[in-house]
Amino acid sequence: MNDIDIESLKGIANQLRIHSIQATTAAGSGHPTSCCSAADLVAALFFGHMRYDPKNPHFYNNDRFILSKGHAAPLLYAAWAETGLFPVEDLLKLRQLGSDLEGHPTPRLPFADVATGSLGQGLGVGVGMALCARLDKLDYRTYVLMGDGECAEGAVWEAASLAGIQQLNNLIAIVDVNRLGQSEPTAFGHNLDVYKKRFEAFGWRTEEIDGHDIEEIVEVLAAVGLGQQPLVVLAKTLKGAGISFIQDKEGWHGKPLSKEEATRAIAELQPSAKSGIGVSIPAPHQLAAPKNDAPASYPPIAYKIGDSVATREAHGSALLRIGEVDPRIVALDGDTKNSTYSEKFSRKFPNRFTECFIAEQNMVGVATGFSTRGKVPFASTFACFFARAFDQIRVAGISMANVKLVGSHVGVSIGEDGPSQMGLEDIAMMRSIAGSAVLYPSDAVCTEKLMEQMASHKGIAFLRTSRPKTPVLYNNDEAFPIGGAKILRQAADDKVTVVAAGVTLYEALKAADALKNEGIGITVIDAYSIKPLAKDLIRSAAQKTRNVVVTVEDHYPEGGLGDAVAGELSMDGVKVHKLAVYELPHSGKPEELLAKYKIDAAAIVETVKRLASA
Amino acid sequence: MNDIDIESLKGIANQLRIHSIQATTAAGSGHPTSCCSAADLVAALFFGHMRYDPKNPHFYNNDRFILSKGHAAPLLYAAWAETGLFPVEDLLKLRQLGSDLEGHPTPRLPFADVATGSLGQGLGVGVGMALCARLDKLDYRTYVLMGDGECAEGAVWEAASLAGIQQLNNLIAIVDVNRLGQSEPTAFGHNLDVYKKRFEAFGWRTEEIDGHDIEEIVEVLAAVGLGQQPLVVLAKTLKGAGISFIQDKEGWHGKPLSKEEATRAIAELQPSAKSGIGVSIPAPHQLAAPKNDAPASYPPIAYKIGDSVATREAHGSALLRIGEVDPRIVALDGDTKNSTYSEKFSRKFPNRFTECFIAEQNMVGVATGFSTRGKVPFASTFACFFARAFDQIRVAGISMANVKLVGSHVGVSIGEDGPSQMGLEDIAMMRSIAGSAVLYPSDAVCTEKLMEQMASHKGIAFLRTSRPKTPVLYNNDEAFPIGGAKILRQAADDKVTVVAAGVTLYEALKAADALKNEGIGITVIDAYSIKPLAKDLIRSAAQKTRNVVVTVEDHYPEGGLGDAVAGELSMDGVKVHKLAVYELPHSGKPEELLAKYKIDAAAIVETVKRLASA
Repeated sequence: MNDIDIESLKGIANQLRIHSIQATTAAGSGHPTSCCSAADLVAALFFGHMRYDPKNPHFYNNDRFILSKGHAAPLLYAAWAETGLFPVEDLLKLRQLGSDLEGHPTPRLPFADVATGSLGQGLGVGVGMALCARLDKLDYRTYVLMGDGECAEGAVWEAASLAGIQQLNNLIAIVDVNRLGQSEPTAFGHNLDVYKKRFEAFGWRTEEIDGHDIEEIVEVLAAVGLGQQPLVVLAKTLKGAGISFIQDKEGWHGKPLSKEEATRAIAELQPSAKSGIGVSIPAPHQLAAPKNDAPASYPPIAYKIGDSVATREAHGSALLRIGEVDPRIVALDGDTKNSTYSEKFSRKFPNRFTECFIAEQNMVGVATGFSTRGKVPFASTFACFFARAFDQIRVAGISMANVKLVGSHVGVSIGEDGPSQMGLEDIAMMRSIAGSAVLYPSDAVCTEKLMEQMASHKGIAFLRTSRPKTPVLYNNDEAFPIGGAKILRQAADDKVTVVAAGVTLYEALKAADALKNEGIGITVIDAYSIKPLAKDLIRSAAQKTRNVVVTVEDHYPEGGLGDAVAGELSMDGVKVHKLAVYELPHSGKPEELLAKYKIDAAAIVETVKRLASA
Repeated sequence: MNDIDIESLKGIANQLRIHSIQATTAAGSGHPTSCCSAADLVAALFFGHMRYDPKNPHFYNNDRFILSKGHAAPLLYAAWAETGLFPVEDLLKLRQLGSDLEGHPTPRLPFADVATGSLGQGLGVGVGMALCARLDKLDYRTYVLMGDGECAEGAVWEAASLAGIQQLNNLIAIVDVNRLGQSEPTAFGHNLDVYKKRFEAFGWRTEEIDGHDIEEIVEVLAAVGLGQQPLVVLAKTLKGAGISFIQDKEGWHGKPLSKEEATRAIAELQPSAKSGIGVSIPAPHQLAAPKNDAPASYPPIAYKIGDSVATREAHGSALLRIGEVDPRIVALDGDTKNSTYSEKFSRKFPNRFTECFIAEQNMVGVATGFSTRGKVPFASTFACFFARAFDQIRVAGISMANVKLVGSHVGVSIGEDGPSQMGLEDIAMMRSIAGSAVLYPSDAVCTEKLMEQMASHKGIAFLRTSRPKTPVLYNNDEAFPIGGAKILRQAADDKVTVVAAGVTLYEALKAADALKNEGIGITVIDAYSIKPLAKDLIRSAAQKTRNVVVTVEDHYPEGGLGDAVAGELSMDGVKVHKLAVYELPHSGKPEELLAKYKIDAAAIVETVKRLASA
């Protein structure tokens, strides 16, 4: 890179600053100073260093760029506008309802692979992309621009650790150390050495630079990819850099400049500003495209009715079975693969499996990264530990990411390990994700078929599996579409409709038998798809039992199956009586706990009798 | 410590191993090998090093011990039994429904301050305890026993960072580096140097020892408290140590020994085993007890009806006001204190405020730590970022911890910042916590009164606050008990009951005015307490409007206000029509977004008209 290019980059950086200031002042909100600190870094990355096709941001071998410090969105938008992807005039529509240039980036924009704005999440996604590049034998690199404040997030260190272990030398983190957080200075100010020691301890190569010295930036970027370690560039910067009366001052986080201030700032920056349009951008290498085609069908299954198989184990069998023919499938686990049975897949396809160790936030981030590259990642751990990654799952929802989560060991039916290991709020959590599917199989056949459905489905899907073995209920050719339910018992004079799923379905069936002996009929429904719920089927069944419904679930009463049925059907007059785990449970034997917390057959019988005679 | 003591400790360690093996074999499940690796460490800590009253585990100046690797519960139980707190015979009741010696420790036991078992959470709680010791001028120390596997959790590094920044030399972490995870060896095996570099980079003093060499353990513990840094003891251990045919072998995680194996193991350990009963335990110093008494009352408030005040700001005012007279109150924030307004408190009471930086998991852990010492911690950040700490909140629920969370910036009404900053699933999350209270004020008076209620309430409480300013609705002497609701509009011929909270309450009031002009009456209820819900009040109002209820909430439809009302009242025939944010929202102006997602007055009017004529 010659001197002319350096000058050009300096000019482009100032042009990006001007756009960021103008857009946020026009919007009346936003984070211009957070844009200014990173403008030189972004100019150097986008206008000469990164290899990508600016007309086709989705090209499979483009270098990837993740703006982990998502509040600097106007800077990202300005960079892409200056590549010519869309008119720079559009930047003034920032944060308007009619424009996808939102307050923080989302994949509504073609150049944002993932939503950012919840800090500390970009690096984990970057790890997933870097692992995917290796798997697909592509040479794109993944760049993650982070703030110094977000380095307080543990998720950053989960990602850093795995990147170090995996020796991801195709992953580059750039930390914009502008020393000022939202409400006060960060703990370490401009002491880059703290960050250097931390990243080194996590297995990274580190470089410390002046983040406003384009020559230094260009020089350090030229050495990207050397050695076997991931690289972090620690850039000392000033918040608001380039605006003499604002830079490095407290009280300027998330604050647009007034019109007068903007005019003054732009007057300072304009003389040296330069458009990026027409600047030559290195093209990505033309390597073979990854094979990410879904198969026409999956191999058949062969269970026998009555066989005893835990749904968590059927999950493992399904993962292996569909993974055999579906090259899109990759799997991840958090050191529970012998309990979730994802180890079946990991043994057969070690290259397509990522052991994330005990770091669930990062596991979901890595899965999201894989999903942005056309893979269908299945991540598994105990259901309760997905709570650890709720924010990553939330953001995957905003990213409309194609991520599949499988949570095992749900409810009190795990028994002796006690409440810390019981998934009792996972349905509530996963239902609340925008666009999610929440699935809860009772037997092995249903589990296997739902795994196929998940692989075909677009978006976030969650499968809830149980620890105990349960008998196979369904024939191997039974279909289980997402949004469906199965009526297992129904007769003309039924008094109550019982809706169950998972282990409680067997309790409902036992209750049906017991009640039949006493002359009381109940309709039993397997609600294996909790979201979307088979509303019409359940409503219609309920209407035949005087609208009286009992739901039974191995979950807390809030936000689970009972709330789903009531929330969707009460408007039609359906009356839902919820059996659920109404108190903090204790350790004990599974059957003891189902009885103690009144979600067993006896509790169903008692409730039905009360309602049948009412 | 003399040679006799060393020999004695070696014997006690083996006795603890024997108990752990016997208890897990009797239970038929559990983690004996994870107990054995840490037995020497625990023997040295409990029988000569730590200062505490074994007859009074709650004494305020006892050293604290947190078993972060909670699956080694039998070891902890054995240690306390050997101090004489309860009969050693009880250890054989491990994991039984009738015993509080559960699979993982919970505060049902007097010596467990917090539930553990979700890995990586102990250190954050320990930071809270260590900060509290400093605040209360007590000299107890906090010891946290961790596994090496759990050091992959980011929460560990959030806690480590804050401990380093705060120079907590009264905090001691001990890492039991037994190199074997659940499903495979950890990434770093017995390479203690990796952990050493990481903790050093996070500001800790480090010591590397052989975790089975009692002399070395005793020696390194003798130097606890030196210098200004927190101390981590990195102990190289063998999983299953002491059992010749199991130690350091894979495949032994979470697996009890068979009866035969147990007999063989005990035969190896028995000859050198020694009871801890009667061993002299250093007494805690008798320092002044902390003042943790609730005040008789709180100072009055003085708002004027119609004043425009954001509930987030009223939260800050309340925190300061009640904090002035209530010494139990401490506050924490995650670098959002200028947005949540907790900065009002932080400025006045810097010693009682902890800036946790952008690390929400640790913030909740630290708050839990404070709560175990008699404080009433209020932790605040944007509501959506509490999703980051869901697992810590879940475990705080299992701990029955007295933690107060305040989440601001809820819903689409934040406007331009976009979905990543909007709390749209926080009600679902917080309702699902065992024993939680979920509160959602609409105006400043209600906010202030609910803050008082939260301070008096025992357990986890969540307050949901909004970004926009809203008019004061209530008189300063209005009472807002947890579990209550307010009827703001009601007339004999009302057609529909509208239940709202927060910003949507004002939309409901606007709708009532508009509908009144058209001759349609609606009942309007302020459901400021979503959990517990004012069931009787809402049911009774609904019955007067033909059981037709419309809920309106700035939240996703799953698990929120609408599901709460339907889930609790559909059984009584109440029909709930939910207005909520049914799709992934976009950036825009608050009022535009309320309209677009159909939770504004116009949407309420439209829905009521449809239902009134049905």
